Amino acid sequence: MSVREDVIALCQAARAAARPLAMASTDARNRCLRDAATRLRAEQASLLEANRCDVTRGRAAGLSSALLDRLTLTEARIDAIATGLEEVAALPDPIGETIARWRRPNGLEIAQVRIPLGVVGIIYESRPNVTADAAALCLKAGNAVVLKGGSEALATNSAIAAVLAEAAAVAGLPAAAVQLIATADREAVQVLLRQRQYIDVIVPRGGESLIRAITESSSIPVIQHYAGICHTYVDEHADLGMAERICFNAKVQRPGVCNAMENMLVHARIAAPFLGAMLPALQAAGVELRGCERTRALAADVRAATEADWRTEYLDLILAVKVVDSLDDAITFINTYGTGHSDAIVTEHYGHAQRFLAEVDSAAVYVNASTRFTDGYEFGFGAEVGISTNRLHARGPMGLRELTTYKYVVSGNGQIRA
Amino acid sequence: MSVREDVIALCQAARAAARPLAMASTDARNRCLRDAATRLRAEQASLLEANRCDVTRGRAAGLSSALLDRLTLTEARIDAIATGLEEVAALPDPIGETIARWRRPNGLEIAQVRIPLGVVGIIYESRPNVTADAAALCLKAGNAVVLKGGSEALATNSAIAAVLAEAAAVAGLPAAAVQLIATADREAVQVLLRQRQYIDVIVPRGGESLIRAITESSSIPVIQHYAGICHTYVDEHADLGMAERICFNAKVQRPGVCNAMENMLVHARIAAPFLGAMLPALQAAGVELRGCERTRALAADVRAATEADWRTEYLDLILAVKVVDSLDDAITFINTYGTGHSDAIVTEHYGHAQRFLAEVDSAAVYVNASTRFTDGYEFGFGAEVGISTNRLHARGPMGLRELTTYKYVVSGNGQIRA
Repeated sequence: MSVREDVIALCQAARAAARPLAMASTDARNRCLRDAATRLRAEQASLLEANRCDVTRGRAAGLSSALLDRLTLTEARIDAIATGLEEVAALPDPIGETIARWRRPNGLEIAQVRIPLGVVGIIYESRPNVTADAAALCLKAGNAVVLKGGSEALATNSAIAAVLAEAAAVAGLPAAAVQLIATADREAVQVLLRQRQYIDVIVPRGGESLIRAITESSSIPVIQHYAGICHTYVDEHADLGMAERICFNAKVQRPGVCNAMENMLVHARIAAPFLGAMLPALQAAGVELRGCERTRALAADVRAATEADWRTEYLDLILAVKVVDSLDDAITFINTYGTGHSDAIVTEHYGHAQRFLAEVDSAAVYVNASTRFTDGYEFGFGAEVGISTNRLHARGPMGLRELTTYKYVVSGNGQIRA
Repeated sequence: MSVREDVIALCQAARAAARPLAMASTDARNRCLRDAATRLRAEQASLLEANRCDVTRGRAAGLSSALLDRLTLTEARIDAIATGLEEVAALPDPIGETIARWRRPNGLEIAQVRIPLGVVGIIYESRPNVTADAAALCLKAGNAVVLKGGSEALATNSAIAAVLAEAAAVAGLPAAAVQLIATADREAVQVLLRQRQYIDVIVPRGGESLIRAITESSSIPVIQHYAGICHTYVDEHADLGMAERICFNAKVQRPGVCNAMENMLVHARIAAPFLGAMLPALQAAGVELRGCERTRALAADVRAATEADWRTEYLDLILAVKVVDSLDDAITFINTYGTGHSDAIVTEHYGHAQRFLAEVDSAAVYVNASTRFTDGYEFGFGAEVGISTNRLHARGPMGLRELTTYKYVVSGNGQIRA
């Protein structure tokens, strides 16, 4: 079969599996995940063997040491993947939840009931743990899944997907509910992105360029997880000690993630005392600073920030700093340069907090807390598919619920329309 | 300016208006709608004048009398449009609703708050009332709207949109929140469908071929309102009198709409008594019947149903009838030939009702009621943008809530991530 026929056949198989999977019990879906965890641990040797092939091939192909590290499995990493599956199994089942229920004047009872989305396509880059994580979340929410990982992890991903499919079959679920596109041919993704009749949604996991390319080519709806250019605005009425702790945390605690702070805005009235303490603390932690003229007048070793700096997701120990004259300026700046991900104000002023929360148009808006909390686990969802910067369907951290849809169940006793 | 530049400029203007509109009070949005109603009634003469131009042009272009009728405004129709605006103004505001709120162990308070989607694009066919209806729903939900109506209604749509924009300005809302693409050039829609940075969602209103063409070309997410091939299954345990009333209503009360019944399935065990009474009643009401062999053996004047019949949305007084041997066969048939819109079972058997409701994969599933109730008004939403056959974002009747998204509002007192 050609790559094209292969991909289509596999999408059709996933679609056919979606119906019986959606009808499976909570218990069967959880047993599948727990059994997959047991099997991953038991088949550790063969997983490591498959992974060694990928790593050897990757090294020969000249992959960077960072990429090789992300690709490499160890006993501890396999155990962590297995534990992740067990954690997903332990989460409450989103399926069957009655979202709302009401009675109409004519006696009709209408219930809005949560059901699986259907078939989810996941396109991701090198880390093989995504194969297990993403498939587990899809299965838990009653969805069949079509996985397309990076070609450098092909052997590892195939081995993990095979374990999941086996566990599904043993639990009485359709094994075809877990599909992996096992080819390095780039045509495969293009074919996948046109299978609108078989795939309900595409969730890409990876860098912005991957997501943009997928969105451009896809005829299937894509849930974007674009860049986070996150701001913290230190208001003139901030508790400066609190502001320092929050900004330090938002920038330094884990700079390589989308909810880390990239731009720090500071009200002119408290700029001198705040930046006087904050900037040296950041520099001592290895943060490279880029600032506006007023920032640079207050500290040494601050490069001039360019227009491009305000629009850059550094994902690194680099911070752009700007002094602003008002709350309005801060809000306008954030709505201009931000990416609608996560933005915070530090203030003790009630009205300023309320205005910031209402007027900053981001998926998560904070008062007096670090933007680093935008995360499915930190929000209490127990799991995370990603953080959506879409406005449709799901916005912000996506947990199991965001992998579902609903139907209306209408119970009557003979009602007809007049 | 070229058509292309025109359309882009107008989408940009809508996007710029979306922010201040989203911040406007409930009161201002309602005042705008009530004022627009008053103005439509006051400016009746000039609306009728504009409409006469469209009708004259349409007649010269050879439009069918049905299309001319849909295009024509009268005093009564203008009054109905105005009343519609007042009804939307009277609906509860979806914006600002707290969907969920919880406290995390670290003390963070997280609220999921309903906010406007942003900018909605509406592409529709000839009826000029859609200009007012759709714009009103968008404005009520705090969204800017870009309207593209049929070119045969250009003068009428322009006059109505101008009234809405005026009313917006008087209410202190941005007049640019209501945009109409006033050209008959077909390139305009193609340009509109690529403005992903300005338009958040496209809602087409019209026939299936319009919607399919839009979906194919659009880089903006489209909410599809595809065909309704709706079924009623009369179970062996049905109250046959109730089944007759429900099936008659579902087919005859208004056959030209998407929630009308197109296929009727009947259990073999009750086929003789049920069809013996039902089919003559339908025929007496002017319904043309197409049936399987077993159906045809039970009644006169029933054409043989072809494979194509089971897949046709007649939107007319035509019904396809099939005798089935089991609930399983009925469910499989519906999931194969249905369009996931609205499907009903008539039964007194609890277990059969439960299985049908769970296993039929449609936006609305009914027991003992007519499928004709799938409608925003009948569901109690007070208004309707359409009936989505999408699985993402909105499924089934779309009211004001389905024109919104949400943000997470997180209130802390200094929380940082460990």
